[in-house]
Amino acid sequence: MKRLLLNCDMGESFGAWTMGDDEAAIVHVDQANLACGFHASDPVTMARTVALAARHGVSIGAHPAYPDLVGFGRRHMACAAHEIQAIVMYQVGALQAFCRAHGTQVDYVKPHGALYNDMARDDAVFGAVLRACASLGGLPLMTGACADNARERSLAQAAGVPLLFEAFADRAYRNGGEMVPRSVAGAVHHDPERIFAQGLAIARGEAFDGLDGEPVRLEAHTLCVHGDNAESLAVVARLRRALEAL
Amino acid sequence: MKRLLLNCDMGESFGAWTMGDDEAAIVHVDQANLACGFHASDPVTMARTVALAARHGVSIGAHPAYPDLVGFGRRHMACAAHEIQAIVMYQVGALQAFCRAHGTQVDYVKPHGALYNDMARDDAVFGAVLRACASLGGLPLMTGACADNARERSLAQAAGVPLLFEAFADRAYRNGGEMVPRSVAGAVHHDPERIFAQGLAIARGEAFDGLDGEPVRLEAHTLCVHGDNAESLAVVARLRRALEAL
Amino acid sequence: MKRLLLNCDMGESFGAWTMGDDEAAIVHVDQANLACGFHASDPVTMARTVALAARHGVSIGAHPAYPDLVGFGRRHMACAAHEIQAIVMYQVGALQAFCRAHGTQVDYVKPHGALYNDMARDDAVFGAVLRACASLGGLPLMTGACADNARERSLAQAAGVPLLFEAFADRAYRNGGEMVPRSVAGAVHHDPERIFAQGLAIARGEAFDGLDGEPVRLEAHTLCVHGDNAESLAVVARLRRALEAL
Amino acid sequence: MKRLLLNCDMGESFGAWTMGDDEAAIVHVDQANLACGFHASDPVTMARTVALAARHGVSIGAHPAYPDLVGFGRRHMACAAHEIQAIVMYQVGALQAFCRAHGTQVDYVKPHGALYNDMARDDAVFGAVLRACASLGGLPLMTGACADNARERSLAQAAGVPLLFEAFADRAYRNGGEMVPRSVAGAVHHDPERIFAQGLAIARGEAFDGLDGEPVRLEAHTLCVHGDNAESLAVVARLRRALEAL
Repeated sequence: MKRLLLNCDMGESFGAWTMGDDEAAIVHVDQANLACGFHASDPVTMARTVALAARHGVSIGAHPAYPDLVGFGRRHMACAAHEIQAIVMYQVGALQAFCRAHGTQVDYVKPHGALYNDMARDDAVFGAVLRACASLGGLPLMTGACADNARERSLAQAAGVPLLFEAFADRAYRNGGEMVPRSVAGAVHHDPERIFAQGLAIARGEAFDGLDGEPVRLEAHTLCVHGDNAESLAVVARLRRALEAL
Repeated sequence: MKRLLLNCDMGESFGAWTMGDDEAAIVHVDQANLACGFHASDPVTMARTVALAARHGVSIGAHPAYPDLVGFGRRHMACAAHEIQAIVMYQVGALQAFCRAHGTQVDYVKPHGALYNDMARDDAVFGAVLRACASLGGLPLMTGACADNARERSLAQAAGVPLLFEAFADRAYRNGGEMVPRSVAGAVHHDPERIFAQGLAIARGEAFDGLDGEPVRLEAHTLCVHGDNAESLAVVARLRRALEAL
Repeated sequence: MKRLLLNCDMGESFGAWTMGDDEAAIVHVDQANLACGFHASDPVTMARTVALAARHGVSIGAHPAYPDLVGFGRRHMACAAHEIQAIVMYQVGALQAFCRAHGTQVDYVKPHGALYNDMARDDAVFGAVLRACASLGGLPLMTGACADNARERSLAQAAGVPLLFEAFADRAYRNGGEMVPRSVAGAVHHDPERIFAQGLAIARGEAFDGLDGEPVRLEAHTLCVHGDNAESLAVVARLRRALEAL
Repeated sequence: MKRLLLNCDMGESFGAWTMGDDEAAIVHVDQANLACGFHASDPVTMARTVALAARHGVSIGAHPAYPDLVGFGRRHMACAAHEIQAIVMYQVGALQAFCRAHGTQVDYVKPHGALYNDMARDDAVFGAVLRACASLGGLPLMTGACADNARERSLAQAAGVPLLFEAFADRAYRNGGEMVPRSVAGAVHHDPERIFAQGLAIARGEAFDGLDGEPVRLEAHTLCVHGDNAESLAVVARLRRALEAL
């Protein structure tokens, strides 16, 4: 059995504007989800971040988004299925060029922000992203682990696309495995101990407490972590050590 | 000896705006230079145009540009060499994703507009484009044929990048093989007979008259043609038949 | 009683891409809704189109949209109310600069595409647009006439913003005055006689047939017309003559 | 005689990315040069920054730029004169809408980055910006003070546009008043004492040492200062107190 991996959004600077501290975070994670220029990043930032990930031997995932730089890809856009398929292919292809130049490759696709959320609730969006992944040679798609991922498994299998399920150590779940929206009080854990404990429970396949008091059990390949500040980096470093010791 | 090929800029629509008549032109040309979203085109247009070129068995070239949609990539931008390398890699990579999905590939790179012009006169720009082509696995670079392409040959050889030389049947040359800038009177031929004759001379390796009365002789692999209107298409069709009959 | 006016979307070219034939349409209409760079147009196109409208003495309206050039502002975007207020103010302000330079002014605001549609069904969006109009000195807002515009009247009155109601001669209505969505068969009239007749009925305050057979009666200040092609221009010219003769 | 003013670039955040600390800097400056969305800022950032400047009674200038977000407007673009005029009018107009909503106005125009530099050396660019200012009702234009501003004075007078000359306390000059380009060693002063001393000399109309040892004397209305970090803010605060005590 493979250990639970740690994935982190990176390469989110844009032109003269910096975001995150990729140099600090890269040493703790297994997978880097790299922005592709539609919600963040630009060709120069992509070149630099791919080089960073390659140097550290970190697996690279494409992090495509709706075309909404000013909104950081967080706003739902009513794109048609063929538009979504094309924008995912475009962004992943662009990232692949930088990866090949560094002797590495895009290992998976993780849609960003509103596209990620839309995919979770709209079969047309999920199908469009799956078709993009299939067109890209069957690239694995990362999506959220929940109580029952039968829908995702069934659609992905039909498309011939492997899935990577990710869970969150710092987000509350309810109903046995449904992620609580940010708008709900208690949706985000801030206590490092709690984040650490939930991450470890997920790694061990153990249940942890949901926001509604019900036990939550998630099957996940990877845990989404954040490297924005010193505190979150400390939790990530501790989680990494604990996961390696399991 | 290979016959002279015909290349044409295509896929230059953007969103709701159409440009050119790719369906009409594709049947006459050998090589389609496809815009990649920075001066024209968008992911949906790229998907459609790659499908069109693949269906007609036409060779696909990437047509990357400076990031200037509103200026159609025609305005010089003082980009640094590493910026140029990255924007070329980004655009070509994006196009490659669509090509692979159609079982085809990007066969060469032809920079567009101001980037094409800057490359011809600035070694730093030419070098940046060459590094991008080398990073993309040694993709051939299309550049303008002139009286003496020793500069281009030498730089490209050092970079390990093959060159494709293109000539123009509808543009005047002078000084034995220097293309006359559009700002000069007589720079563009409008007479179909003259365009046809110059194209054929280039194909046969024969000299034709320069604007200054001097004979011009160009060594070219491919001729750049335009499919904007019925008249230009008629010349292209006639040239294609003549080239095949040589 | 004022005669029914004719308004038309204009200035929808973008950079090297042209759309519509503003020179032909401008002579037939009273009001020109000018794109402001977010879904179409650009500063140079705006300068040129404002000059055209000013020269013909046509009233100028701002036609702001979601920031979605590649989607022509037709795709719903989940923008927050403060974002909508700011993007409307930005676009209208930009257009005002060109108007003032030509000794004219922006007379009203007509949101475009998805923003227009969202405004009609979402009070938060409608409120944000109203706040923008109020911030712009109480600029009148153009919105769709329907069977009962009590909602719009009430919200606009509270915001201190006058309303201009527009109707469509080439669109089917039902339920006494609800515009039929384009996705429904029969939503768009193509018969010039029918378009002319419906336009005239609206001008006279008379009822016309709805798609469901029910009579439709609309109170409108202005009729939205299209100048895309020779046929639609012919209807517009005929309508204009008829309206002036009423 | 008016005291020397302090101006500072502000509102340079973009969407999710922040830049500078406008809240800290605004208390020390007289004039805020606000980005208008082409090299930095966006409608929401503009709304917020105009509100901040209005609250502190700081004079607002428009800071228009070439359309180059990813390059932060720092890269020369070969725009035509009519394009430059239009992009300046567009950006200033957009900013004016937010100012009017806060009961204030745009007091002057200060081009940003490459546009500022191009204006200083290219009469066609300077003329285009002047025409924009004239079209905007004769808005004053801020430009660099040098040994002899006869060229600027003459062109501006012909256009009917007042000029505001700005000097830099942290930049080296030579040849009696020519700003040294950043590429030259010693072009930027880092010693707070030296910056303070040069600023005060300019305020008093006294000469200070040029990089070439020659004395430099500048006639300026305003001093460009930076609020990026604690150290630069400390110099600004000290300069402000000294200027008020003169």
